[in-house]
Amino acid sequence: MKTNLPKERYSQAGPVAPTVMVTCVDARGRPNIITLGMYMPISHDPPQVVIGVSPKRYSHDLIRDQGEFIVNSPGIGLAEKMHICGTKSGRDVDKFKEAGLTPGPARKVRPPLIQECYGHIECEVVNMVTCGDHTLFVGEVVAASIDEDCLRDGKLNLSAARPIAQKNWDYRTLSEK
Amino acid sequence: MKTNLPKERYSQAGPVAPTVMVTCVDARGRPNIITLGMYMPISHDPPQVVIGVSPKRYSHDLIRDQGEFIVNSPGIGLAEKMHICGTKSGRDVDKFKEAGLTPGPARKVRPPLIQECYGHIECEVVNMVTCGDHTLFVGEVVAASIDEDCLRDGKLNLSAARPIAQKNWDYRTLSEK
Repeated sequence: MKTNLPKERYSQAGPVAPTVMVTCVDARGRPNIITLGMYMPISHDPPQVVIGVSPKRYSHDLIRDQGEFIVNSPGIGLAEKMHICGTKSGRDVDKFKEAGLTPGPARKVRPPLIQECYGHIECEVVNMVTCGDHTLFVGEVVAASIDEDCLRDGKLNLSAARPIAQKNWDYRTLSEK
Repeated sequence: MKTNLPKERYSQAGPVAPTVMVTCVDARGRPNIITLGMYMPISHDPPQVVIGVSPKRYSHDLIRDQGEFIVNSPGIGLAEKMHICGTKSGRDVDKFKEAGLTPGPARKVRPPLIQECYGHIECEVVNMVTCGDHTLFVGEVVAASIDEDCLRDGKLNLSAARPIAQKNWDYRTLSEK
């Protein structure tokens, strides 16, 4: 039996979401981290991704003004650190210090990557679209890197990376086959 | 140790993707189904979602021209039927028949919902954005419904719905806690 949902609660009828930790910088190069459930790849050639960020978030204007971000992909072991980055504001704290995460140099953009994450997608903003109460940033991929031991035959090794999927911020990894 | 990826293979450094089955109709009301790994919620108020569709796909012009689609969320038990809907073209076959899926009436739009899926998000197209080799459709949610037994305390029950997450089309459900 199907039951109707109020349309503002539509996401309960949807699939799970990935979770990523996006890094960005302010004008002085000071880095911030935002935990996001709104990420998807969108184009193969040229390589592009999209993320959704609320204008209320501190990172929103950093990404808009500096035009760069990195999508860092966490394994399930980082769930607690992700929660810290998703609930504190970079206006008040240094999230790398607060969460005990390690910044590392990116290849093509100014924001640092998060060493503890298994994968890193470096992006330059090529378009911004207002969609209701969020901004959709379209990022062109300018570099990508991954933990060597999470790659098998050129593909992400799910058993090694243990990527996160969540619904209502209940973090899980994937079932074994 | 981090290793660089060619930027066109960036998605290996990214998180997992959900998988949904989107339904749409042609001008005569004939329905089609497309399996997509590009879906995300984008706005709470007004409720909006985005999907990414290649202009090469038969469903692309149906969604553009008719301005309506439904995001249907499958459980892992539908993996084989999803594969059929992702690899055959609606130009050649009736995918409901081909995959053995059951169309059901939607509340606010013309495309049918897929009865075997646990959730259904009915959308009207409010924006289209070309992002590289794909089109991003922004859909405003006009109705949503869910299998009664997949809802617990107003939220999606992961153990009952068994939603799909995938990387490189390797379908998995989520781990138990």
